[in-house]
Amino acid sequence: MQYPEPIAKLIDSYMKLPGIGSKTATRLAFYTIDMPKEDVGDFAKSLMAAKNDLHYCSICGNITEDDPCDICRDKNRDQSTIIVVEQPKDVMALEKMNDYHGLYHVLHGVLSPMEGLGPDDINIKSLILRLQKTPVKEVIVATNATPEGEATAMYISRLIKPAGIRVTRLAHGLSVGSDIEYADEMTLLKAVEGRQEM
Amino acid sequence: MQYPEPIAKLIDSYMKLPGIGSKTATRLAFYTIDMPKEDVGDFAKSLMAAKNDLHYCSICGNITEDDPCDICRDKNRDQSTIIVVEQPKDVMALEKMNDYHGLYHVLHGVLSPMEGLGPDDINIKSLILRLQKTPVKEVIVATNATPEGEATAMYISRLIKPAGIRVTRLAHGLSVGSDIEYADEMTLLKAVEGRQEM
Repeated sequence: MQYPEPIAKLIDSYMKLPGIGSKTATRLAFYTIDMPKEDVGDFAKSLMAAKNDLHYCSICGNITEDDPCDICRDKNRDQSTIIVVEQPKDVMALEKMNDYHGLYHVLHGVLSPMEGLGPDDINIKSLILRLQKTPVKEVIVATNATPEGEATAMYISRLIKPAGIRVTRLAHGLSVGSDIEYADEMTLLKAVEGRQEM
Repeated sequence: MQYPEPIAKLIDSYMKLPGIGSKTATRLAFYTIDMPKEDVGDFAKSLMAAKNDLHYCSICGNITEDDPCDICRDKNRDQSTIIVVEQPKDVMALEKMNDYHGLYHVLHGVLSPMEGLGPDDINIKSLILRLQKTPVKEVIVATNATPEGEATAMYISRLIKPAGIRVTRLAHGLSVGSDIEYADEMTLLKAVEGRQEM
């Protein structure tokens, strides 16, 4: 005996999401049936809206409803600094600081020979073209502190530096509020290397 | 800075699902944007279909597109035996045995004083009415082997037995293929109590 077709299809749909296997998908599908009808309707609508109304900004690659995005259109922002990040989520994280008023560039990935991702598979070309068109003083590379993120940062730095643009990388060190006891060796090493006068 | 509205709404929708917090919801929402358009369309459609086309069978409470459900309409099935389960998923699990040809009754929950769930909150009344209308020889109580499941089984047994209907409970014991070494004490105790001649 099979599940009735509507629920079998819904289970299949949930299983297409990352990290959701058949057991979780089944649980979510049965939960959906018991949800208020308007919540399910909202869910279906928001799925379609997110897919249809959102685009990538043609300048920075960030996710946006309008093109160019709010940040690229804002002439009050410092046009001479660009932070390079891996994902749109990283832009949100950095904006939460409320302290940076420059621009962004979203790579949508990192160089990863293991996954067959080369320079043409991420938004590097559009960054170079952008730097050729507009006068930028500093590029801050804020890729993740992973081997792939470091390699990507190094690659971008080598491409941009010859043009006389300052290229910097976010500092590595201890998280604020963290215990030295629980820090890993690599982080401690970076924290010692990057020590500052006080 | 906030996420663009379509993605913020989608994150909210994902967060209404059980076990999905804001981090996972954000991850799923960004993943959804990168999914093929037709997959997202199918997902939205299957959500609506599951909510609109599925109902609970008016006889047994199982989930179904047609009322009564396939099992209740099947006159070839043994009409004199009913297995009582907690959830529609349990019906599917028992049907996979391919060895039981009687009927089912889905309680949609268990008695749980902690959660304020009494006999009126689960499908017990419809079970009693069903037993008064149709001649049933045996009711097999297949609620889960949890304290709530056991209490519910006991409650149902006390209600039904006076009517002269045989009430049985699924056997407790070792799972097939399991190691005694890893079995918990309660399971071992039940396995010894329920030992059989060989």
